[in-house]
Amino acid sequence: MEFTILRNELNEAIQHVAKAVASRTTIPILSGIKVDASFSGITLTASDTDISIQSFIPTETASKTIATVKKPGSVVLTAKFFVEIVKKLPHEEVHIEVGDRFQTMITSGATEIQLVGLDPEEFPVLPSVQEDQVVSIAGDLLRDMIRQTVFAVTTNESTPILTGVLWNLHDGIYKFVATDRHRLASRTAPVDAGDVRFSNIVISGKTLNELAKIVPDQNVMVDIVVAENQVLFKLGNVLFYSRMLDGTYPDTSKIIPQNFKTELVLNTKLLSDSIDRAYLLSREEKTNIVRLTTTESGGIEISSSSSELGKVTEQLGVVEMRGEPLKIAFNSKYMLDVLKVIDSEELFIGFNGSMSPIIIRPNDHDNSLHLILPYRTTN
Amino acid sequence: MEFTILRNELNEAIQHVAKAVASRTTIPILSGIKVDASFSGITLTASDTDISIQSFIPTETASKTIATVKKPGSVVLTAKFFVEIVKKLPHEEVHIEVGDRFQTMITSGATEIQLVGLDPEEFPVLPSVQEDQVVSIAGDLLRDMIRQTVFAVTTNESTPILTGVLWNLHDGIYKFVATDRHRLASRTAPVDAGDVRFSNIVISGKTLNELAKIVPDQNVMVDIVVAENQVLFKLGNVLFYSRMLDGTYPDTSKIIPQNFKTELVLNTKLLSDSIDRAYLLSREEKTNIVRLTTTESGGIEISSSSSELGKVTEQLGVVEMRGEPLKIAFNSKYMLDVLKVIDSEELFIGFNGSMSPIIIRPNDHDNSLHLILPYRTTN
Repeated sequence: MEFTILRNELNEAIQHVAKAVASRTTIPILSGIKVDASFSGITLTASDTDISIQSFIPTETASKTIATVKKPGSVVLTAKFFVEIVKKLPHEEVHIEVGDRFQTMITSGATEIQLVGLDPEEFPVLPSVQEDQVVSIAGDLLRDMIRQTVFAVTTNESTPILTGVLWNLHDGIYKFVATDRHRLASRTAPVDAGDVRFSNIVISGKTLNELAKIVPDQNVMVDIVVAENQVLFKLGNVLFYSRMLDGTYPDTSKIIPQNFKTELVLNTKLLSDSIDRAYLLSREEKTNIVRLTTTESGGIEISSSSSELGKVTEQLGVVEMRGEPLKIAFNSKYMLDVLKVIDSEELFIGFNGSMSPIIIRPNDHDNSLHLILPYRTTN
Repeated sequence: MEFTILRNELNEAIQHVAKAVASRTTIPILSGIKVDASFSGITLTASDTDISIQSFIPTETASKTIATVKKPGSVVLTAKFFVEIVKKLPHEEVHIEVGDRFQTMITSGATEIQLVGLDPEEFPVLPSVQEDQVVSIAGDLLRDMIRQTVFAVTTNESTPILTGVLWNLHDGIYKFVATDRHRLASRTAPVDAGDVRFSNIVISGKTLNELAKIVPDQNVMVDIVVAENQVLFKLGNVLFYSRMLDGTYPDTSKIIPQNFKTELVLNTKLLSDSIDRAYLLSREEKTNIVRLTTTESGGIEISSSSSELGKVTEQLGVVEMRGEPLKIAFNSKYMLDVLKVIDSEELFIGFNGSMSPIIIRPNDHDNSLHLILPYRTTN
C-alpha cells in the first residue's frame, strides 16, 4: 500500500472513525484503525464490535485531488498515536507506505514516522446490512430527537434495555422513547419512510450520543437502514453501524395520563431559572428535592431547603392555571434536564395530585412529552 | 446588618475572594465568606489561613451608587452556596439583612433566600502587615514572571520549600526562580523598588497561580508588600495575603554553566512543533524521552521511539550552530513546558555534552533562563 493524501481530509476522516475505536480492549486489533487504499479512494474503519464507523475519502472531488494512490492495499494502525499525530503533521501532504510485516512509514515535510502496523486480515468484517428498510431524516431533526430523549436513559447496567432509546415507526411517524423508571422522555416526528414500519428497536444511548456528534451541522439528510440486529446510519461518506440492544422494552404507553386535575402554562425560561436556584440549595442535601405549590394569589411558589444551609423560596407568575390547588415535590435535576431540551417559549405541566406522574410538554405542539415521578414526601 | 447592592458588583467581589475559601476543612468558619458592611462600603473576606483575600466594594464610585447601607454589621456565610446563587439571582439588585442568631435573608426580585449565618467573631483576623518594604510592578509583568517560572516548582510535598517560587530583589532587579531538581526556570525584571531589597522569600506556586488569575487584564500596577512572614499584594480594591514558605531555598546559582561546548539558535515554534510530535510517541513509553542529535548536514534531528508503536524522526534546520557535534536525551514534557513560555521568535540552547545540564533562553534577551537535566541514557 502506498498513497499520498491531504492532511486535513485525512485528519477529518480519522476524527470521525476514532469514536468507534475500542478504548479498553484486550484485543489489540480493535484498538486500531484500518486503512484501505484503492484507486477510487481511502477507506478508514474502526470498530469496538458494538459500533463500527467507516469513512471514505475519494481520491478526487469535483474541485480538487485529495489523494493519489500508487499501490492499493491495507494496514491496521494503532489509533491512539495515529489520531494525535496526523493533525500535528507539519506539511499539508502526507505520504503513507506499508513495507514488510506491515511496517508503515508516514512522511510529511521533514517528519518521518515509522509505525508498527497490524495485519488487516485480523480486523473484524463489518456486518452486511440488507437495505429494504430505509428511513430518510434531516440531520438536524435526528440530532434534536436524540438530544430530547437520550438524557432520560438509565446508566444502571442492571437493566440493559433501559440504557437504550426505543424506536417505533408507524404510519410515517417516527417515535423515540427513553426512561430510567423515574422519568420518561419521548419525541415524535413525521418522516419520509414510504411504507417502512418497525417497533421495539432499541439503540444504546451512548451510541446515539456518539452519532449525534458526527451528524454534520449542515442540514443534510441521513439514511437510516434498519436490518435484523443492526442499524446503519449513512451520513454522506461516513457509515455508522450500531448493534441493537437485545430484549423487550417495557410498554410505557399506559403510564401517560390523558387528563389532569391541575394544569399550568408557564414561561420556560422563568421556570428554568427559578428551579435552577432552588436546585443549587437542594443539591447540598444530595436529594435534589424541590417543591412546587400553587398559591392563593394565583401563582406558584418554588422552594427548597437544606437543614444546614437554609431555604430558597421563589414566587413565580403563571401564564395560565386550571384545576385544583397543588403541592408537589420532585427531583429538580430531572426537571432541569427536561426544561433544557424544551425549545418552546411556553410549556404545559399537568398534575394529578402529589402522588401521580408530572407531565411536561411544549405548549405549542405535542411532538415532545416528558414525565417525571414525584417524590412521595409527607410534608 | 442590612444593605442593598448591585448583583454584578457583589458577584465580582465574591468570585475574587472565593479563591481563598478553604475547600476541605474541618473548621466550618473557614468554609465561609465574611461580609462586613459599613457606611463606606462592603468588605468581603475569605481565608484558608495560607492565603487570605479581601475585596472592598465602595458604596459609590464617581459614576454610580453601588450599595446603600442601612445598618452596618457583619456575618459569615457558607461560601459554597453563596458563591453559586448570587450570580443566578433574578434582579440586578440584592438586599441582604441579618436577623437573630446571624440568620440572613437575601432577597432579589421574587426570590427569597434564608441562610444560616455564622458568627463573624469566630473568623480569623487578617495578618497585620508593616508597609516598609513595597515593590510596585505592572500587573502584566507580574503575571508573565509567574507564568514563566511557576510550572517548574515541584508537586512533591516531601520537599515543601521547592513547591514555592524563590524571590530575590537586589539593585532594583526582581528575580523569580523555581526548580524541582530536574529543571529550573528563572526570570528577572527591573522594577520600581527604591532601595528595597530582600532575599530568600519563597511563595507557594499554587498561591501564585491563584494570584495570577485575579491580576486584572488591564495593565494596572500591583503593590507588593513584603513583611516578616507574609506578603501582601494590593490590586486596587482587592488585597491578597500569602504566607511565605518556611525554610532555606537551595543555592542554584552554581549549577548554571556560563560556557558551552555546543550552542544552537533555533526557531522557537519549529522546535516546539517538532518536539511536540516526538513527545506524542515518547508519552506512550511513559518516559517522555526525546533525543536531539546534530547532523552532518549542519541541522539537528529530533527523534523518539516506542517499542510497541514505532519511531518518529524529524529533521530541523538551525539558525546558527557552534561547537561540537552532540547527541543528547531529555524529558520532552519539560522541554515543551519551557518552549511554551518563551515568547521570543528565536531561542538559544547551550550544551556541555550529553551528561550536563541543557540551558535554554530567548535569543534576544537574557531576562529568562531555563535549565533541564538530560537523561543519562547509554545509547
